[in-house]
Amino acid sequence: MYLTKALSELVEELEKLPGIGPKSAQRLAFFLLKEPEEAVNRLAEVIRTARQKVRICQVCQGFSSEDICEICADERRDRSVLCVVAEPKDVAAIERMKDYHGVYHVLHGTLNPMEGMGPERLKVRELLARLQKNEVKEIILALNPTVEGDATALYLAELLRPLSLKVTRIAHGMPVGGDLDYADQATLHSAFEYRREL
Amino acid sequence: MYLTKALSELVEELEKLPGIGPKSAQRLAFFLLKEPEEAVNRLAEVIRTARQKVRICQVCQGFSSEDICEICADERRDRSVLCVVAEPKDVAAIERMKDYHGVYHVLHGTLNPMEGMGPERLKVRELLARLQKNEVKEIILALNPTVEGDATALYLAELLRPLSLKVTRIAHGMPVGGDLDYADQATLHSAFEYRREL
Repeated sequence: MYLTKALSELVEELEKLPGIGPKSAQRLAFFLLKEPEEAVNRLAEVIRTARQKVRICQVCQGFSSEDICEICADERRDRSVLCVVAEPKDVAAIERMKDYHGVYHVLHGTLNPMEGMGPERLKVRELLARLQKNEVKEIILALNPTVEGDATALYLAELLRPLSLKVTRIAHGMPVGGDLDYADQATLHSAFEYRREL
Repeated sequence: MYLTKALSELVEELEKLPGIGPKSAQRLAFFLLKEPEEAVNRLAEVIRTARQKVRICQVCQGFSSEDICEICADERRDRSVLCVVAEPKDVAAIERMKDYHGVYHVLHGTLNPMEGMGPERLKVRELLARLQKNEVKEIILALNPTVEGDATALYLAELLRPLSLKVTRIAHGMPVGGDLDYADQATLHSAFEYRREL
């Protein structure tokens, strides 16, 4: 194989990234080797710095550069609505919608007994502690419509029942702009099951 | 937008990589922030080191960690066959085939007058200098079947004519395992034009 040691190490590291196969890793590596050295050093520095600076918000458990993240620190957010998500990236996805003004709680995973993810490994204790304050009126479970997301949603709904809060889950159905012809069976099934009266 | 400054800087840098759109950049960034810090630092270090260590082989102009690359230094390579490619990554692609035992010459680009890529910006002078040694019997032009690749191949064929070497170009046609139905017109045209008698 024609690859100097430094280059093959680079390809190897890049291959560990999600969605980057051997071919993309090699394309990225050759791109980086042709880039000006200062641009490449900047990328390396930004990667290192971001990881070093990131902290977990003490309130919502999402990513933050401070002890309390900007959303939890924002006085204008509605603290009576709490959206539970699996991962920090889900917060970013919902924020992109620009339509949700409540706060978040990040579980850092979903239940998956096969992989040893039990409730004790999720940020469930922190969620219950937050609810002690009695600020929250509605909990929106924004978990992915997967086996793990479903299991986690059911588990939380059961756990939260004694607190007599409104617990909802985001709707599943046809994606907007989608085509019936291309929808998978499970999505179509959800779309029919949760049909609304007009 | 819910993104700390360090995170948005990271996304911005990752978006500059080829084939990485805004969505992939964000997915990669969130992945990196969840990774153990030492793994992320290793990636940053490997990126920096690879760029810092890479040199251009004085003979073939390909990537190398030494003054002369491992292919040019390898006594077993057949110096009578020289394969001309546009980019260092093309050398890696041909080496993966494990079927070519000659040497290489990397042009570092293709002719593109619209973008100001004239022959003087390609490693053509270095190619002519190598040919002075009279070792080379055949030059294989392994340039992409694109407008720029075609122009570069024609230019080089013309330039090399006085040297009375065998100058060939790799074949264009249907990819192996391809389907006529999916082939584009230009490929099909090439496949018919360069048909062989059986």
